[in-house]
Amino acid sequence: MNIRLYNARIMTMERDCSIIPDGEVWVNGNEITYVGETWNRPKNGEKEAAVRWDREIDLNHDLVMPGFKDAHTHSAMVFLRSAADDMKLDKWLNELVFPKEAKLTSEDIYIATKLAILEYLTSGITSICEMYLDPYAIAKATEESGMRCVQCGGMNDFSQSVEKHREWYEKLNNGNSLTSFRLGLHAEYTCSKELLEAEADLAHELKAPVYAHNSETLKEVEECRERYGMSPTEFMELTGLFDYGGTFFHGVHVSDRDLDIIQRLNIAVVTNPASNAKLASGIAPICKYQERGITLGIGTDGPASNNCLDMFREMFLVTALAKLKEGDAAAVDALDVLRMAVSGGAHAIGLYDCDCLSVGKKADMIVIDLHQPNMQPLNNIAKNIVYSGSKSNVKMTMIDGRILYEDGKFSIGAEPEDIYRDVQKIVGRLH
Amino acid sequence: MNIRLYNARIMTMERDCSIIPDGEVWVNGNEITYVGETWNRPKNGEKEAAVRWDREIDLNHDLVMPGFKDAHTHSAMVFLRSAADDMKLDKWLNELVFPKEAKLTSEDIYIATKLAILEYLTSGITSICEMYLDPYAIAKATEESGMRCVQCGGMNDFSQSVEKHREWYEKLNNGNSLTSFRLGLHAEYTCSKELLEAEADLAHELKAPVYAHNSETLKEVEECRERYGMSPTEFMELTGLFDYGGTFFHGVHVSDRDLDIIQRLNIAVVTNPASNAKLASGIAPICKYQERGITLGIGTDGPASNNCLDMFREMFLVTALAKLKEGDAAAVDALDVLRMAVSGGAHAIGLYDCDCLSVGKKADMIVIDLHQPNMQPLNNIAKNIVYSGSKSNVKMTMIDGRILYEDGKFSIGAEPEDIYRDVQKIVGRLH
Repeated sequence: MNIRLYNARIMTMERDCSIIPDGEVWVNGNEITYVGETWNRPKNGEKEAAVRWDREIDLNHDLVMPGFKDAHTHSAMVFLRSAADDMKLDKWLNELVFPKEAKLTSEDIYIATKLAILEYLTSGITSICEMYLDPYAIAKATEESGMRCVQCGGMNDFSQSVEKHREWYEKLNNGNSLTSFRLGLHAEYTCSKELLEAEADLAHELKAPVYAHNSETLKEVEECRERYGMSPTEFMELTGLFDYGGTFFHGVHVSDRDLDIIQRLNIAVVTNPASNAKLASGIAPICKYQERGITLGIGTDGPASNNCLDMFREMFLVTALAKLKEGDAAAVDALDVLRMAVSGGAHAIGLYDCDCLSVGKKADMIVIDLHQPNMQPLNNIAKNIVYSGSKSNVKMTMIDGRILYEDGKFSIGAEPEDIYRDVQKIVGRLH
Repeated sequence: MNIRLYNARIMTMERDCSIIPDGEVWVNGNEITYVGETWNRPKNGEKEAAVRWDREIDLNHDLVMPGFKDAHTHSAMVFLRSAADDMKLDKWLNELVFPKEAKLTSEDIYIATKLAILEYLTSGITSICEMYLDPYAIAKATEESGMRCVQCGGMNDFSQSVEKHREWYEKLNNGNSLTSFRLGLHAEYTCSKELLEAEADLAHELKAPVYAHNSETLKEVEECRERYGMSPTEFMELTGLFDYGGTFFHGVHVSDRDLDIIQRLNIAVVTNPASNAKLASGIAPICKYQERGITLGIGTDGPASNNCLDMFREMFLVTALAKLKEGDAAAVDALDVLRMAVSGGAHAIGLYDCDCLSVGKKADMIVIDLHQPNMQPLNNIAKNIVYSGSKSNVKMTMIDGRILYEDGKFSIGAEPEDIYRDVQKIVGRLH
């Protein structure tokens, strides 16, 4: 499809959050071929541009910007949404989450992932970084739907293996271009030292970065100190896991020494503020990460611990919680947060071809409806998005040149009502 | 208008958050005349109910519930949305807010209030408690639009007076039934002792409750202690201001002694979590208020300090911030939060005729679209609303029997685009 979006405000996010007030974007296939000021058609006698448009869309001065990157999630856990809230973390995990997850089939994961994809699209999320069971079922759901998905391993003492990771790394990085796979482990506290060392060997062999939950709760950090006499970050560094970089999810409870390591090894951090608040885990030290120039992305975490997949809520929380933590209303500027939700998240999950709007980049973009009361007046559009934005403002979500969501309607090759019904059946069966 | 909503899920919130799975609601004029299970039409030969419906609306099993109450706001400050964020509080107030507010005309306030009303409707807010300049301009905007509005005085050393309050109390409580007026003051720190005592005399004369900002910031509390040797709550109690009850806005920094006073005087508290976070004021002790059975409502505060008017975001923040503050994922159950957003808020602002869905109550209600991915699956609809809900789920907002918002379209007697243009003009003029 060749698509032309015109009469648009455009925030390319190539460098900053400045806005082209009157421009257009051209999409040919899955790539951006023009982004800039309104293109003046040649006068009579001159040669017209050779492009034939399948669609030309008048945006009525709504905003085009790159799609958000949900840099940490467990999509299929959506079947547990609102099934277990307002409970202590241990009870929630052991009595609700683990017993039900143990009964999930590949088909369940496939279906539940599709429900999550619908919700990502309503929130303008064009890439997700997924860590969950059964990578093939997830890839089937995301590829069929058209969602860009970086999967990472979730190695632990009870499931997955170095052999599986090698297989997934080979297959998922050489198939559908929407899908990629990164090495990864669940967390230090669910992996033996031997297992971590084996994954580190694989990382060295593949010269690959490693992704992991890390320092989400104080308990996790304290137990690691009891076990090994050091923090999870210090311990994992020793295993060589991050010699080719990588990404930490959460990073709530980190020492200055941990921060030194994260900075030195060029590890990115993905913050999950709603989940960390709802589960009473704490507030991540975003200012400290910023001071050291550490790459920051934003994730929703899974919908059982959030419970929604809404980048607008996460963006507000990143800045608002930082302000509370620092006792400073000037902490973590909203424009920095917007960059975390887009290019920061993209880089944290290893995507460099869909991190901004420019020629040659993948056509992953969204249209924000500015003709709604929460986006008015237009004092500062970028700050409106972070401080006032809502799913209701997402008018269109395009991934890889395909419009998957537009004016409340989905085009993912399956009907929402069918997906709702099938997920409800899973809920009934696992009750 | 006589309206019948059928094929509905209904959460009446009369007592709890339980749901009638298949029911209907009848609205005659501005009142509810039936709410309950699906009404079986009489068989042939029996007499039909005499009602003729102007509209019968098939809700396709979406949810009807009472509208949210935004129990503390300064609507017209929406002209400052995103004009001054990520700044220290003092600088924000003194360099941005006060100089621009000083130039506002009554017409500006009237227009800006209308913009805020559009946004309240998109968020399912059916009543607001407003404290701002020029009550007549505000009443004109809310009455023309059909918004239920409780205004309260914002007495301070620089504007308003006991005489004005007596006039507004008389006029605004005896005009349009959508409008009411309560005595009120800006805050202890902006009022002399003499002024507080004069307002207290008026409260005694009218046997009326008093509304006030209180203990929003630690600085405010500390300065009061320096001034009078006691907290603002203790000091205001001594003046007799709250001898007929009242409501505190914010209540972030309160001592156990303050809590004793609030409980003894039957004062309600309205929490404003987004504003308190964004301005780094702190987290209100919701658990302590709950332990004492103090009436709790939720407010957005003004859109310059939030910046949006979104009850879904506020509800999530009430429970999430309480969980962070207490370090307990079980703190402040989401169902309690839902009650704060509806009946708690209604009672905190003195509304007892639109706090739930039951026969004889005012027809203030909303329809929540459950056919959207963030509301699926239906493990627990009430918790879905608090943890996953968004403005995008508000399908209809009805106030006083009139549908003011439905499927993204407004019916408030003015066109959104005209309001946007007029507010943008104000922004331009005050630049």
